[in-house]
Amino acid sequence: MKTIEFPPKNTFNSLTKRPVFEKNDIENLIKGIFEKVENEGDNALKFYAEKFDNQILEAIEVSEQEIAEAINFVDEELKTAINIAKKNIEKFHQSQKEISLKIETIEGVVCWRESRAIDKVGLYIPGGTAPLFSTVLMLAVPAQIAGCKEIILCSPPQKNGKINPIILYVANLCGISKIFKIGGAQAIAAMSLGTETVPKVYKIFGPGNQFVTEAKIFAQKLGIAIDMPAGPSEVLVIADETANPSFVAADLLSQAEHGADSQVVFLTTSKEILEKVKLETESQLQDLPRKDIAEKALENSSFILLNSIKECIEFSNEYAPEHLILSIENPENILSEITNAGSIFLGNYTPESAGDYASGTNHTLPTNGNARAYSGVSLDSFVKKITIQKISEKGIQNLGKTIEKMAAEEGLFAHKNAVTLRLQEIQ
Amino acid sequence: MKTIEFPPKNTFNSLTKRPVFEKNDIENLIKGIFEKVENEGDNALKFYAEKFDNQILEAIEVSEQEIAEAINFVDEELKTAINIAKKNIEKFHQSQKEISLKIETIEGVVCWRESRAIDKVGLYIPGGTAPLFSTVLMLAVPAQIAGCKEIILCSPPQKNGKINPIILYVANLCGISKIFKIGGAQAIAAMSLGTETVPKVYKIFGPGNQFVTEAKIFAQKLGIAIDMPAGPSEVLVIADETANPSFVAADLLSQAEHGADSQVVFLTTSKEILEKVKLETESQLQDLPRKDIAEKALENSSFILLNSIKECIEFSNEYAPEHLILSIENPENILSEITNAGSIFLGNYTPESAGDYASGTNHTLPTNGNARAYSGVSLDSFVKKITIQKISEKGIQNLGKTIEKMAAEEGLFAHKNAVTLRLQEIQ
Repeated sequence: MKTIEFPPKNTFNSLTKRPVFEKNDIENLIKGIFEKVENEGDNALKFYAEKFDNQILEAIEVSEQEIAEAINFVDEELKTAINIAKKNIEKFHQSQKEISLKIETIEGVVCWRESRAIDKVGLYIPGGTAPLFSTVLMLAVPAQIAGCKEIILCSPPQKNGKINPIILYVANLCGISKIFKIGGAQAIAAMSLGTETVPKVYKIFGPGNQFVTEAKIFAQKLGIAIDMPAGPSEVLVIADETANPSFVAADLLSQAEHGADSQVVFLTTSKEILEKVKLETESQLQDLPRKDIAEKALENSSFILLNSIKECIEFSNEYAPEHLILSIENPENILSEITNAGSIFLGNYTPESAGDYASGTNHTLPTNGNARAYSGVSLDSFVKKITIQKISEKGIQNLGKTIEKMAAEEGLFAHKNAVTLRLQEIQ
Repeated sequence: MKTIEFPPKNTFNSLTKRPVFEKNDIENLIKGIFEKVENEGDNALKFYAEKFDNQILEAIEVSEQEIAEAINFVDEELKTAINIAKKNIEKFHQSQKEISLKIETIEGVVCWRESRAIDKVGLYIPGGTAPLFSTVLMLAVPAQIAGCKEIILCSPPQKNGKINPIILYVANLCGISKIFKIGGAQAIAAMSLGTETVPKVYKIFGPGNQFVTEAKIFAQKLGIAIDMPAGPSEVLVIADETANPSFVAADLLSQAEHGADSQVVFLTTSKEILEKVKLETESQLQDLPRKDIAEKALENSSFILLNSIKECIEFSNEYAPEHLILSIENPENILSEITNAGSIFLGNYTPESAGDYASGTNHTLPTNGNARAYSGVSLDSFVKKITIQKISEKGIQNLGKTIEKMAAEEGLFAHKNAVTLRLQEIQ
């Protein structure tokens, strides 16, 4: 980890730059996968399962038998934990339902918005070292609250030819209608194009490696919506002298263990806290099963001593972190000054892992500085808001002249005429 | 226009397909423009102004003098119309402000969302045949309500070397801080990358030709957010025997005059209305200044007779129109069945042009079937919603075991440890 003391403000811009990871040019590869899936459908999916996952798939769709086995496999303690998390996520996302307000903008002209679920959504859950069943909760719960009619899920098969049972258990619990053993770019292609077995969806959600990310970008070109651009996970912690160094170290490490490319930034106004957090981080690191990954992430991390909390906030707003932990006295007081962040955690007893799993907020959040323009996944991500208007005879009389004048000035006379004919009929 | 009577339901899918317009492969051209703007800044912008717009620009930024001239140029009647439209747009978008609700998901765990403006946004307004000053209102008004700190605007210079004065007048009225004489892909490149004169923004809004559209897609790859994917404008009208044929024809034509690629679809349950609307459309067409454009658009249009309003709704939901006009009796009664549309207009006195200009709703809407997954521009488009949580000692005691269990099952022990250390300290 780099330690920097009192960097001048004109260095904030360069200090907040993310490292640029080398990106292979895989667009042609992705294009080829989409073409093969479009032309050969399920056979292409079986071909890629053999090629990339070493799996000879008889059926692409997970059977009821496999789901029943998964339900048996999951222990009661985990089922209870998942249920508590699910209830909290439901409660918070339920509160995001928009109440439709009818606004009479001018007498006789009433405008409002109504939310409608996106009919068909596809969730992608990666395989790999950690079975991300928590991500199933984070995506399927709001999809269900929104009322999406068809919620499908793709995840690559494990070595035994099956999807991780906890993922299956949670998917089934959250009303996912169809689950497919498909991984990587071919899963995104299947959900974008549809095959004999896999339905085409309108929006695709979920994390993934470079191939999945590029495939989602390619899907966008075909008119499929995606949740948000992907990037390595990040945390920025701001601490004053009231922070608990061992808690801060644990929070930094829980980000670092995600991946070698995870971003960890620590800002503090206290030299003493800085030193203690460094020692605690080194010490806690030793006992972690994912020590090697966390160690690599820490190599890119910055521990920065600044003059004031105000300066920490300026730095953080420029960085726009995915997760922002405020381990300071009365964090609520400075909340309004935070302009760019995905999710904020207040005080010493609010670890990021609470939001990752169970407090109720969504853990699918903007990374890589995207918090400057993007929100995390919420109920909004699964609905469209349709505007509606009703104009009475009185209303068009009130507004008609305005529309006619503006339409004429834009040179659009049929637009004007649509009003003129109505005004004439009323008179 | 094609007339189709009682098509069977299994043909809806092919009937709702948009024509595919030939798309030149201009990605390399766009990439070249971005590279030149990145390397040469303002000089590149001047180079392209000369090359594409035949303009030798002395200054890229519009001067105060030019704005003062524009304010003088606009007549009082138009100023009044613009003011009325602006007030209505303000009133409706103001109502979209989210009230922050604190939710205690479990005792001691409080979660909520707060909106923050996107600090820097860029608006693109095309030049060309119609000066789209109404689009300035539709983008700048919500940006201002959101509280965006920097709102900039690019628009190509006209033949006289200046931006259309009505566009300048409205931009100035809506608090846009900087206005630049830049058109096309180079405008999008300038706002994405920043130059000596043009600030880099976080999100770009606005319509444009194929070059602008491709440049926005390219900007997305660089991490700049965009409003939504672009496509030709569309209207779908559903009419029963209570519809007024001359109003319907005027509404269809006000879509058709937008461009030769505009989409016009008319669905009705009444053969009589179908015939009358056809005659009216032919007749009104003759007097339009943009007759040639509207005529071309009508060539691709469909007039379809269906068995029931229910069938019309099914067809419309499959098509997912940008604008949907319900010229039927009691349209409110079937509103809940409409699942895919950008904006809906109810009854005989609610022309689409009301929403295009002045009723208060936004006219930047999803086209090309994107209404299946996208909403139109709203206040939401100019803010991020940040999730916030605060957990008390009691809260982490209530939730700790759940987080520990889930983190352990995902193999993320630093996540677990962040909770364990806090629980230990409390005991």
